[in-house]
Amino acid sequence: MTKIPYRFYLTEEQLPKQWYNLRADMKSQPDPLLNPQTLKPVKEEDLYPIFCKELAHQELDSTTRYIDIPEPIMEMYKLYRPSPLCRAYNLEKELGTPAKIYYKFEGNNTSGSHKLNSALAQAYYAKAQGLTSVTTETGAGQWGTALSEACSYFGLGLDVFMVKGSYQQKPFRKAVMQVFDGNVIPSPSNTTEVGRKILQDKPNTTGSLGCAISEAIEKAITTPNCRYVLGSVLNQVLLHQSIIGLESKKAMEILGEYPDVVVGCAGGGSNLGGLIGAFMQDRLSGKTNTRFVAVEPASCPSLTRGKYAYDYCDTGKITPLAKMYTLGSGFIPSANHAGGLRYHGMSPILSKLYHDGYIEAVSYEQTKVFEAAVKFAKCETILPAPESAHAIKGAIDEALKCKESGEAKTILFGLTGTGYFDMTAYSDFLSGRMTDYIPSDEDLQKGFDSLPKVND
Amino acid sequence: MTKIPYRFYLTEEQLPKQWYNLRADMKSQPDPLLNPQTLKPVKEEDLYPIFCKELAHQELDSTTRYIDIPEPIMEMYKLYRPSPLCRAYNLEKELGTPAKIYYKFEGNNTSGSHKLNSALAQAYYAKAQGLTSVTTETGAGQWGTALSEACSYFGLGLDVFMVKGSYQQKPFRKAVMQVFDGNVIPSPSNTTEVGRKILQDKPNTTGSLGCAISEAIEKAITTPNCRYVLGSVLNQVLLHQSIIGLESKKAMEILGEYPDVVVGCAGGGSNLGGLIGAFMQDRLSGKTNTRFVAVEPASCPSLTRGKYAYDYCDTGKITPLAKMYTLGSGFIPSANHAGGLRYHGMSPILSKLYHDGYIEAVSYEQTKVFEAAVKFAKCETILPAPESAHAIKGAIDEALKCKESGEAKTILFGLTGTGYFDMTAYSDFLSGRMTDYIPSDEDLQKGFDSLPKVND
Repeated sequence: MTKIPYRFYLTEEQLPKQWYNLRADMKSQPDPLLNPQTLKPVKEEDLYPIFCKELAHQELDSTTRYIDIPEPIMEMYKLYRPSPLCRAYNLEKELGTPAKIYYKFEGNNTSGSHKLNSALAQAYYAKAQGLTSVTTETGAGQWGTALSEACSYFGLGLDVFMVKGSYQQKPFRKAVMQVFDGNVIPSPSNTTEVGRKILQDKPNTTGSLGCAISEAIEKAITTPNCRYVLGSVLNQVLLHQSIIGLESKKAMEILGEYPDVVVGCAGGGSNLGGLIGAFMQDRLSGKTNTRFVAVEPASCPSLTRGKYAYDYCDTGKITPLAKMYTLGSGFIPSANHAGGLRYHGMSPILSKLYHDGYIEAVSYEQTKVFEAAVKFAKCETILPAPESAHAIKGAIDEALKCKESGEAKTILFGLTGTGYFDMTAYSDFLSGRMTDYIPSDEDLQKGFDSLPKVND
Repeated sequence: MTKIPYRFYLTEEQLPKQWYNLRADMKSQPDPLLNPQTLKPVKEEDLYPIFCKELAHQELDSTTRYIDIPEPIMEMYKLYRPSPLCRAYNLEKELGTPAKIYYKFEGNNTSGSHKLNSALAQAYYAKAQGLTSVTTETGAGQWGTALSEACSYFGLGLDVFMVKGSYQQKPFRKAVMQVFDGNVIPSPSNTTEVGRKILQDKPNTTGSLGCAISEAIEKAITTPNCRYVLGSVLNQVLLHQSIIGLESKKAMEILGEYPDVVVGCAGGGSNLGGLIGAFMQDRLSGKTNTRFVAVEPASCPSLTRGKYAYDYCDTGKITPLAKMYTLGSGFIPSANHAGGLRYHGMSPILSKLYHDGYIEAVSYEQTKVFEAAVKFAKCETILPAPESAHAIKGAIDEALKCKESGEAKTILFGLTGTGYFDMTAYSDFLSGRMTDYIPSDEDLQKGFDSLPKVND
């Protein structure tokens, strides 16, 4: 290869045919999910009321290293994968850095993000089990859109509980989901008991992912032939998203590259876990010393300021308990927080890796993040989602460190999606109306107070 | 190639390095542009007050067959080109057609459409001539977005006059242009004389492209070191857009395919002209007998119900006169018309080819078009722009004809862009609020009454 292209696409034949299960290579495993009644490790069967069987199995399978991607999912992947590995020549030039900056762009599909990778898998398994519908939550809206597409394709009904703040900020997200027959409900809603309770306590809340999850689960377990699906946090989601890292690694291999630093935005961890998986495998086996950087919003800092503790995955406290970095299931990000990355916890797998020193974490205030987003858009002609812009900001800072040190490091970051539905936030930023919010220690303490007693 | 992939990308090295000038192969040339004062064919110099020199040259150059794409434009093309040639397997299956349906997808860039192909060229030439700013109009918003990106990249100021109907229907389009420093003005506006006059006559008008063009031209010729640029209709635009057809042809060649029918949506003709160019070359030389189908909205039917006549390109009647299929520069599409394709005329090159029988034309009402759009989205996971959906509808109908006749024809259509900013229209369609409008003969006569006397 004489000159590395701006956009590099693997061919359809080069598309990975298996997902990679990072847990199989972790010598030190994440602590198990706990049954909230017995406080004992959950068994597959415990999960059957919530998840369909194959996904319950994937959730707990920590030993199978590679899992075949079923053919119907492969066929749908081919509609938008392999996604391009991009070389940010223009951004490098703008920054004046000797670093080589790559990004894996997952936004070239109507869901506008990487979320479709797991949505297709979850919808497929649900359908294969003979279910007629699923429920879910969505924050920024990408997951709900992706799942609407997937359900439409596989012929499943879908109720999406959308965090009310996003629902109001992004009126058109709802319309996209409706194109794909998704039924969208702003959360908290009065369609569930847990929603009604939250509305009673906090009638003006803009909602949270934790609360939307509670509503979706309640709806799933009270509806016949229905299950719940989740777009992030879970082990199964990281498994499906591993395709991002597998493709990135294969593409970089062909280009004669390997990242010194991998940077990803971190909300629940679906993108970060998927992006770093294949590279983390090498690091865990001692073959490489690649650094992994998780970037989170200063307004929802689960890794940088959270506690590593057992917590509920939802506000209503009906899910199994997961050991993770968390701000407490009672934590709700400030209303001025734009975009996603508003989950109180973090993937147990990533939490464990962070705890063990394999991952670093940084946090940024949102105005800094949007500044990076606009700079990136002008250089690379892609308007990033606010979530993705966190990774951009992280990568820019890594590249600027290289400028100072003179090191020509290879940086890879995950550009998870596009910002077409985030123009309210962009307008706020451009007009100077956007403000930042860093929770005080007292604010965080309120969230920590909601942590379950099992940690004591 | 064993099985044709869903998405086929040429490599960066395979990107065409020259544009193709279709006029060089037309034995029967389009009638010349006329100077509106002298009614004589315009000379390059006549165009210098409006266009920068190189673009004025390209506008009138009917003999140079291939024109090198300048290196800085090539570099920017590489940020989003080659665009994928897609095989619509799922749509074929849904329709049960023996036809093979391909589409060239131009929506994988932030402008969301093919418009960037010409925007980059026009901004580059303006900058190379030492201009400091340009003006333009935009209808659906794709062109304004594309030009904002291009101007931001090449360092040019930009005023965008946006058709008021679209401006109101697509609040977020404005925000995207602003990310790229574009200055967006709803048209008609009171910032120009022609705008003030139109507002006086029709204070409640939702505007038209012809009127926005007049405003942009007035602004350009009254601003120092500024020129006007246009996203469609012009010969130069078809030249830049020829890259769509060149790439399509090269990709199909590699896949062992050649289209029997090429279908494109037709507003001013930028996409249709670009898409069909390289294939029309073969048809004109007698090598092939490919059919070319232009699809236009029933509410703005310039080819199917317009007159082939000399007309102004703008409502204010300050541009050169072009011989084209036109509804009259006074024609303004019904306010209920969603999306673009609202121009009163049609590219002179395409008009000539249509007049000479090389192109067919059909028109559809918009509810039929959105029906096709939703069907397509569910099959192919791409949410199409309303403009592009016209081509989808045309291609579906061609494929259904094949189903009847049992012919396995190869259909290629242009998927010009994505519909992320058209969700108001989608919502209207999904909720049954969208209505159709077919102008009566009397409605059309009002537009024809505005045709200049030169035709008498």
